[in-house]
Amino acid sequence: MNTRTKQISILGSTGSIGVNALNVVRSFPDQFRLKYLSAHSQADLLIEQAREFSPAAVVISDEHQYETVKDALPGTEVLKGRAGLLDLASRDDIDIMLNGLVGSAGMEPTIRCIQAGVDVALSNKESLVMAGELINNMLTEKGVNLFPVDSEHSAIWQCLVGEAPEDIKRLVITGSGGPFRATPVAAFKDITVAQALKHPNWAMGRKITIDSATMMNKGLEVIEAYWLFHLPVDKIDIVIHPQSIIHSMVEFVDGSVKAQMGLPDMKIPIQYALTYPRHFPQTWEQLDLTKIGALTFEEPDFNKFKCLQLAFDALEGGGSLPVVLNVANEEAVYRFLKGNIPFTAIPELITKAMNTHDFLEHPDLDDILALEKWTQAFIQRS
Amino acid sequence: MNTRTKQISILGSTGSIGVNALNVVRSFPDQFRLKYLSAHSQADLLIEQAREFSPAAVVISDEHQYETVKDALPGTEVLKGRAGLLDLASRDDIDIMLNGLVGSAGMEPTIRCIQAGVDVALSNKESLVMAGELINNMLTEKGVNLFPVDSEHSAIWQCLVGEAPEDIKRLVITGSGGPFRATPVAAFKDITVAQALKHPNWAMGRKITIDSATMMNKGLEVIEAYWLFHLPVDKIDIVIHPQSIIHSMVEFVDGSVKAQMGLPDMKIPIQYALTYPRHFPQTWEQLDLTKIGALTFEEPDFNKFKCLQLAFDALEGGGSLPVVLNVANEEAVYRFLKGNIPFTAIPELITKAMNTHDFLEHPDLDDILALEKWTQAFIQRS
Repeated sequence: MNTRTKQISILGSTGSIGVNALNVVRSFPDQFRLKYLSAHSQADLLIEQAREFSPAAVVISDEHQYETVKDALPGTEVLKGRAGLLDLASRDDIDIMLNGLVGSAGMEPTIRCIQAGVDVALSNKESLVMAGELINNMLTEKGVNLFPVDSEHSAIWQCLVGEAPEDIKRLVITGSGGPFRATPVAAFKDITVAQALKHPNWAMGRKITIDSATMMNKGLEVIEAYWLFHLPVDKIDIVIHPQSIIHSMVEFVDGSVKAQMGLPDMKIPIQYALTYPRHFPQTWEQLDLTKIGALTFEEPDFNKFKCLQLAFDALEGGGSLPVVLNVANEEAVYRFLKGNIPFTAIPELITKAMNTHDFLEHPDLDDILALEKWTQAFIQRS
Repeated sequence: MNTRTKQISILGSTGSIGVNALNVVRSFPDQFRLKYLSAHSQADLLIEQAREFSPAAVVISDEHQYETVKDALPGTEVLKGRAGLLDLASRDDIDIMLNGLVGSAGMEPTIRCIQAGVDVALSNKESLVMAGELINNMLTEKGVNLFPVDSEHSAIWQCLVGEAPEDIKRLVITGSGGPFRATPVAAFKDITVAQALKHPNWAMGRKITIDSATMMNKGLEVIEAYWLFHLPVDKIDIVIHPQSIIHSMVEFVDGSVKAQMGLPDMKIPIQYALTYPRHFPQTWEQLDLTKIGALTFEEPDFNKFKCLQLAFDALEGGGSLPVVLNVANEEAVYRFLKGNIPFTAIPELITKAMNTHDFLEHPDLDDILALEKWTQAFIQRS
């Protein structure tokens, strides 16, 4: 284990990634010092977390709850709103920031953190989907590390430890196929919100659970893997693996395949991103393959899961397409969750936005933020 | 890839490991220079190999064929018999020796090679089973590397690249369970040589195929893993995996499990032992999990496969027990292959030899060689 305590910041501390990350910090009090916390709107939980870990500063994004948090935490610096979040993300007196924010709102904090020269443990896949080129250039320039937290990317990262990048033949990202793997496409139009929120293996937030149901999540992961591992699209494959035990694989040029496995639980990848290059001991439930029975594998169905095809189209088209893909998806998912549009409208709206927007080959941060606004408005009025 | 050509020696070049190793050398003529070859008795194939690769010297162990080989290879140094083999194994003007010899006869060449300061790619598992303690001490003293060639140990080795040994929770060695995985133990006494030679997944030599049928092979692999990876017995587990796709696994202390996979073919581990730490490109048949269907896992049955239990007993008892286990098994397997004893007599004879021999806590090389002779004689007259 490390001898030096790591100073850590957790954005999105009241979400499912954040709560798991706090468990890691709680398990290894000598290894981590929790310096900053941010929450969107769950003021009560944020206050409870701050009382336990005594961070130097916290952010509550929802400005209506600022006074409540401020009053509850005398002696703690309390910031508010988007400006407070970006301020906290820009601070350079920490070793690592875990970005557990949901959606495109997480992109700018990632960029601020890299600009501050601080390593990022990235759960917010939208950061790389929307600004992969910008972020990779910044990482090189600043000499900053970006550690994946997504279970699939953590699996690939773990399989690549000690290996030469030139020896990679392809990455194989596994996906459970979600709740509608075996549902005929003709029934997709009648899928309800409650059905889409029932993921067979993973307990996650609402937005990502819908993304798993449409398989957009797998598509976003392909785009994320593209930027994280610097491989062309044709070296990134998807395999459906309904049991979610093999979290992803790397095939090397000699035909050797390495896989990382575990029970479907975010605890391991979250902890590994914070303890890399070491594994820290935990006694949580262990994988026992003799109890799992069989691991099975299928080809993905791109005709049925149109969002998956759209993600590959956006990655191949490049430029501004992944920005529009991601923001349009986000807005369409929120409209679906509100009961506003049917399940099948999600890929339809995304396609429309991708086809309508003004394409940019190399969008800069201002372009991306402008496109985000345009796409949000476009989907809201479509 | 390496820029410098590796000088290589292959012991057992006409066996299944040796032939595969020569294919690797053939694939990468700029990377390898084949300097020495040894064969037991297949003079014709040895001559053909020597004509293709022009080694500086060859050994034919069978002295009756010495003149044939010598006459066929003018200008090549030709050695003969056990003395010739040990001479060749002691030469220090090579970078790596692949030991593809079968059985306990392979142990001394491994030791000679390490004493000469040359790295060993070890397929001969009997070397470590019989002289693990001696060999490990010598490796440290000489600063020599020992690279595993067995698919299981290669898998573990590949999973450990870049990892800290202290982070290992346990090794999980997979085994197909062999041809009699589903055979009731009551039928074991009637198992014929032909039945035992039909392995479901792997094409291998006769001795190791019988060892797979008794599961002694898995037991020897546990002992080999013990010496290779420096872990206590209780951190080495066996899981039955009939498809032989996952070649073995490592579980880390955080619950993360890494597995190495591939089609059941020795090509990959043989090549990796010669190209480590790199993977060299090959176009042989690739693993496609969607074609495999399901990967399944079971607990091993120690009551049915008594040889497996004997191997754990020998490892736990330590000292001279693994020497006797291994030699007794070898002789008993040869008696079974000759139709001399029934399948079920194999573990019975081994047990008798283990119980009868004079136990030594730390046998030296002379002790081991004397025990080998004693055990051979004991099994032959039992």
